[in-house]
Amino acid sequence: MNMHLKTGPAEELASKGAAAKQAAAELALLETEQKNSALLAIADQLGKRKADIIEANRFDIQAGRAAGMSESLLDRLRLDEGRIRDMASALRELTMLEDPVGKTVDSWDRPNGLELSSVRVPLGVVGIIYEARPNVTVDAAALCLKTGNAVLLRGSSSAIRSNIMLVSIIQEAISGQGIPAASVQLIEDTSRETAARLFKMNDVLDVLIPRGSSALIRAVAEQSTVPVIETGAGNCHVYIDDSADKDMAIRIAVNAKTQRPSVCNAAETILVHADWPHGACLIAALQEKGVLIRGDERICGLAGGTLPASDEDWAAEFLGPEAAMKTVESTEEAIRHINRYGTRHSESIVTSSPDEAEKFLAGVDAAAVYHNASTRFTDGFEFGFGAELGISTQKLHARGPMGLSALTSVKTVIRGNGQCKQ
Amino acid sequence: MNMHLKTGPAEELASKGAAAKQAAAELALLETEQKNSALLAIADQLGKRKADIIEANRFDIQAGRAAGMSESLLDRLRLDEGRIRDMASALRELTMLEDPVGKTVDSWDRPNGLELSSVRVPLGVVGIIYEARPNVTVDAAALCLKTGNAVLLRGSSSAIRSNIMLVSIIQEAISGQGIPAASVQLIEDTSRETAARLFKMNDVLDVLIPRGSSALIRAVAEQSTVPVIETGAGNCHVYIDDSADKDMAIRIAVNAKTQRPSVCNAAETILVHADWPHGACLIAALQEKGVLIRGDERICGLAGGTLPASDEDWAAEFLGPEAAMKTVESTEEAIRHINRYGTRHSESIVTSSPDEAEKFLAGVDAAAVYHNASTRFTDGFEFGFGAELGISTQKLHARGPMGLSALTSVKTVIRGNGQCKQ
Repeated sequence: MNMHLKTGPAEELASKGAAAKQAAAELALLETEQKNSALLAIADQLGKRKADIIEANRFDIQAGRAAGMSESLLDRLRLDEGRIRDMASALRELTMLEDPVGKTVDSWDRPNGLELSSVRVPLGVVGIIYEARPNVTVDAAALCLKTGNAVLLRGSSSAIRSNIMLVSIIQEAISGQGIPAASVQLIEDTSRETAARLFKMNDVLDVLIPRGSSALIRAVAEQSTVPVIETGAGNCHVYIDDSADKDMAIRIAVNAKTQRPSVCNAAETILVHADWPHGACLIAALQEKGVLIRGDERICGLAGGTLPASDEDWAAEFLGPEAAMKTVESTEEAIRHINRYGTRHSESIVTSSPDEAEKFLAGVDAAAVYHNASTRFTDGFEFGFGAELGISTQKLHARGPMGLSALTSVKTVIRGNGQCKQ
Repeated sequence: MNMHLKTGPAEELASKGAAAKQAAAELALLETEQKNSALLAIADQLGKRKADIIEANRFDIQAGRAAGMSESLLDRLRLDEGRIRDMASALRELTMLEDPVGKTVDSWDRPNGLELSSVRVPLGVVGIIYEARPNVTVDAAALCLKTGNAVLLRGSSSAIRSNIMLVSIIQEAISGQGIPAASVQLIEDTSRETAARLFKMNDVLDVLIPRGSSALIRAVAEQSTVPVIETGAGNCHVYIDDSADKDMAIRIAVNAKTQRPSVCNAAETILVHADWPHGACLIAALQEKGVLIRGDERICGLAGGTLPASDEDWAAEFLGPEAAMKTVESTEEAIRHINRYGTRHSESIVTSSPDEAEKFLAGVDAAAVYHNASTRFTDGFEFGFGAELGISTQKLHARGPMGLSALTSVKTVIRGNGQCKQ
């Protein structure tokens, strides 16, 4: 447990970083079958070692309880037989997905006879920094392995015993398949100092991916000089245009707000065109689902039980049974409001006018823009990717739900017969 | 000239940043024809205002000379009629290139009837930080405009008068075409403090691109929390396998090393298989071109006039008439050497064995890997992109020569008929 006390944090990072780079060079050359065999071996090993995992996890749970951790956090930390079985089946499902590595993305010839092709390759060494949930340890390791990347995992101190156990099981399983153990490593020092060093490890890490709360993601994005894939916050909107079908609009707005309010693709603000005549029905439908409405003057005039919205409400990610509602005079005004207050995640227009729809789809700056559908579909599984690393709200490299190919880069392969530059 | 003294640096960045964001929203909706008309208007205006440009540039040149700037730097700073004409024709050529914005990259349907498409969109606001050459001002502004991005330019203090004049001409030209002047803005405060603020302007900038020396690029990559596209250093290799054709190998190695030694895709180290029998001829051919060879013991034993190589030589980017030469026993050893000392830019194998070629192309981790061709082809024009933003040596977002699409992202457009999440 105290392995990180044997060496300083700088030494741990340096030696694991060097080992990861070496492993990455080997991983890049693996065939898909070898990677899939390793994933299956991990799945088997998790099943065989479930008692050890639960035992290690019990120490974390006890320490968490002693430290006064809330029941909901303790629940996220807990590993039981069911959760271990779920992790194992996710690993088996991952073997069914297409391996992006080695795919030719594009190929073309030049007049001088050079033949070029752009081929998908792993990123190299991926850093993942995450919070209490130990299942992320297995999930992140598996996604990296499938895409031929070495991974440095940095979980939270509250899950350290579970994570050490899980990583040792993963290393044992992949070593048995001839894959270097250093392909998956845990940074055991969970101090802030080590995290800060990890943020600057540009010579080792090709990318750093934070998974967890928006506070964690913001901290990584603000402090890291390693390229970051930012996932995160969703202040999503549903805009109901004057021509919107009454039932469809109410169904979509209620679904986007209430089907699972705690997630990033849930709607937070409903924008309603001043001429759409069913505002009162919409408010009633939302209130029936227990949603507290914070509206502008017109909205509050439509129904009781509403509160006046403040400027902060337009920017709020409620993540619970509250919604902001605002009246707009046009699609243009809706677009301006969304581009000002939104987080560029998922935005939807409900309208029967194709012109208004196209205006909205083009004018709103977001990863996913919807016409006549709920924002709740923004996710790797709903998009059909079969896996999800997170939902990127940045614009470089990957935007929106990220499938396996977000963990790859490309290399240009050029075949010649002696060409020299004139 | 002293506009930046009227307001503090923080105010200049904040107000120009806000204006850039607003301009970006308008730019994203422009048709290709409008953007091309604006590029042509800039080209025309540069021609009409050439006397003003040369006059402003003369102040910079005089100040540079007074400050003891070297003749080569003064030359890079200088704008004359010929260079202004070149800038104008580059703008006209850019109008001939395909506009990546609006292109559908992929489209697919889901079983629930949702229709998805992935569409290219501008990045938003691009920051460009660069050194003395004022032609970068026009080039960067044009590439951003073509791709619908607003740009904040931060050039060097030595070119400030030229840059102010060029940006005012660009703004005048695009305003005349109905495009917001704030689409192209110059940060006039050239202090380090302002640069440091620019590096952290995550709320405004979608990407920051350094163009210039490797010291500049390293500084930006190390200090910036805004996503960076890193371009840069090239320690490129040519590996001559034992089966390599004598004439082809010598021709490629000499071309890669000597055709233009000062650029990033020129070769720095030649690796030679121990069993390739023409090492002495190769050394003679390089020496004939004035190249000083720093070799291992075997290489130095093959010819006079060579120097023993140190470990630093394997990592050196000579950028001049010097080359390191090393003997290896196998393609595997060549790959290991390159992956250890290379900068992941451009790497070439000369061999008549398809097996050794494939091993090398797969095993070397670089943006561009060549079989039987010179490394000097790694560039946006030679790759057929028609434009080049630089050569990315990072793996996220863009790798290798960057064409216009490197300045774009994607958005997923989802069309439904009332779909809600179950």
